Amino acid sequence: MGLALAIHGGAGTIVRSKMTPELEREYRGGLEAGLVAGWDVLTQGGSSLEAVEAAVVSLEDFPLFNAGRGSVFTHEGRQEMDAAIMDGRNLKAGAVAFVRNIRNPIKLARLVMERSEHVLLAGDGANQFADALDVPTEPDEYFFTEHRWLQLQDAIAAGRVQLDHAAVRPVGTVGAVAFDRNGYLAAATSTGGMTNKKFGRVGDTPLVGAGTYADGTCAVSCTGHGEYFMLGVTAYDVAARMNYRRLRLEDAAEETVARLTEIGGDGGLIAVDTDGNVALPFNCEGMYRGWFTEGGQPHIEIYS
Amino acid sequence: MGLALAIHGGAGTIVRSKMTPELEREYRGGLEAGLVAGWDVLTQGGSSLEAVEAAVVSLEDFPLFNAGRGSVFTHEGRQEMDAAIMDGRNLKAGAVAFVRNIRNPIKLARLVMERSEHVLLAGDGANQFADALDVPTEPDEYFFTEHRWLQLQDAIAAGRVQLDHAAVRPVGTVGAVAFDRNGYLAAATSTGGMTNKKFGRVGDTPLVGAGTYADGTCAVSCTGHGEYFMLGVTAYDVAARMNYRRLRLEDAAEETVARLTEIGGDGGLIAVDTDGNVALPFNCEGMYRGWFTEGGQPHIEIYS
Repeated sequence: MGLALAIHGGAGTIVRSKMTPELEREYRGGLEAGLVAGWDVLTQGGSSLEAVEAAVVSLEDFPLFNAGRGSVFTHEGRQEMDAAIMDGRNLKAGAVAFVRNIRNPIKLARLVMERSEHVLLAGDGANQFADALDVPTEPDEYFFTEHRWLQLQDAIAAGRVQLDHAAVRPVGTVGAVAFDRNGYLAAATSTGGMTNKKFGRVGDTPLVGAGTYADGTCAVSCTGHGEYFMLGVTAYDVAARMNYRRLRLEDAAEETVARLTEIGGDGGLIAVDTDGNVALPFNCEGMYRGWFTEGGQPHIEIYS
Repeated sequence: MGLALAIHGGAGTIVRSKMTPELEREYRGGLEAGLVAGWDVLTQGGSSLEAVEAAVVSLEDFPLFNAGRGSVFTHEGRQEMDAAIMDGRNLKAGAVAFVRNIRNPIKLARLVMERSEHVLLAGDGANQFADALDVPTEPDEYFFTEHRWLQLQDAIAAGRVQLDHAAVRPVGTVGAVAFDRNGYLAAATSTGGMTNKKFGRVGDTPLVGAGTYADGTCAVSCTGHGEYFMLGVTAYDVAARMNYRRLRLEDAAEETVARLTEIGGDGGLIAVDTDGNVALPFNCEGMYRGWFTEGGQPHIEIYS
């Protein structure tokens, strides 16, 4: 039973042939920074909750991932972000959906958990909650990246809602799961959603049990085509298979992803249990991911 | 294996001493109308999906229940409604969160399922989707009821967010679950949320797996203190206990409510399986409920 941390930076159609060595180095650097940020917290005796928050803040700040800075654009040309955090120690959670101009949506999610009676706040109301607590904001320019803007123009031209799985910039949701010295688990997930999304669509990221879950058994963060993770109740399904079928983490996570495949969903998940095991299964060409377990080496991978 | 239908009109602190015979008759009438509306669909060969929609439409239209007409007021004096519907036949679902002026939010949820690529639409975006499909709306006055307005003034005076479980008007979320002639299950839930709620709070009702769930095993609709149903992933937990622990519907539903009690949540749920069994457990003084199974009699109950 040792410390454990896993992170992801999205999954989907990561086409190896479209990846340049320079770009791959950049992505690996972004993942490594997130892994180090979370691992430092754990080794300095911090909680799993603090570790997943630190890792996700780092991934949100990195402009190539679709979360925080560098989020994709909605149909109206806005950047709306979703995030959730869950503390397995006491089964508490906080989440926000389509907030705007919040520098680190994952920090706002934690404030919802700690400073409100609610689990999920959405839209203008969530921004009002952030204002009331003086949560740091940034102007639109901070979140803007040219490649996301071009993605929106492409998607509008093609007339489709697009998951953030473009071949050239194969990026998506970010997330982290951790197990700490005191034996507690936590999970965090953050995303800019879908390019060209309309009508106030909410995906799986901010929903407890769908994209994010942690209890006394395991912690899970998902990435992929959100609607299928919602219908499959994917994050909680891993815990249910462990608790009710007495499966090991790795087997439970594999079965959950197999079910996701069965119902037509693309993507993957990262998970950790109270023995410090990690699992990172996915059913697509690649998933940006990293993990670190006590006594082991840090790992960064992109393809399967 | 016969047809089965169960409905609820909310659970919570239903104080028998505050109930008058006239009021009880009114509530029973509202439940009976919902039960008949759904049962007629099933006996005429309609699908479970059509049956739960018809039952919930009837309950939304009845002004004493907190859904559709008669919804509670937010802090700003608005009526914002949530609803979800799920078809166990194909694991599809549609949901809306804090929509305004939609006559029957459950019908809009069904349109999200059938006419969009998404599962959950929220806020102004969901209303725009409704406009695009010419979904029937009503002016504010249609939804207004005096007792809800007085509840808001009381809650503001008392400085608290209030679940819709006031002693004098003990009403709440509405929902229905059904099993049809072709062997398929469906679930639907609709609510006006919490009196005096702020900050764009989203509860369990529109969340697949939390307040509403249906697959090939069972269909579940929940009512109670939503945040705990979200953290417990309550609706899906019933299906998980049946699938992974091989429990009967009644035992799975009882265990799920026992876990809800353990984590501090008040409320209940209604559930039906593919043998036409129904379960209606709750952990509070009462739950407005009704059920009808083939060859049996219709039942309407309020207290335990």
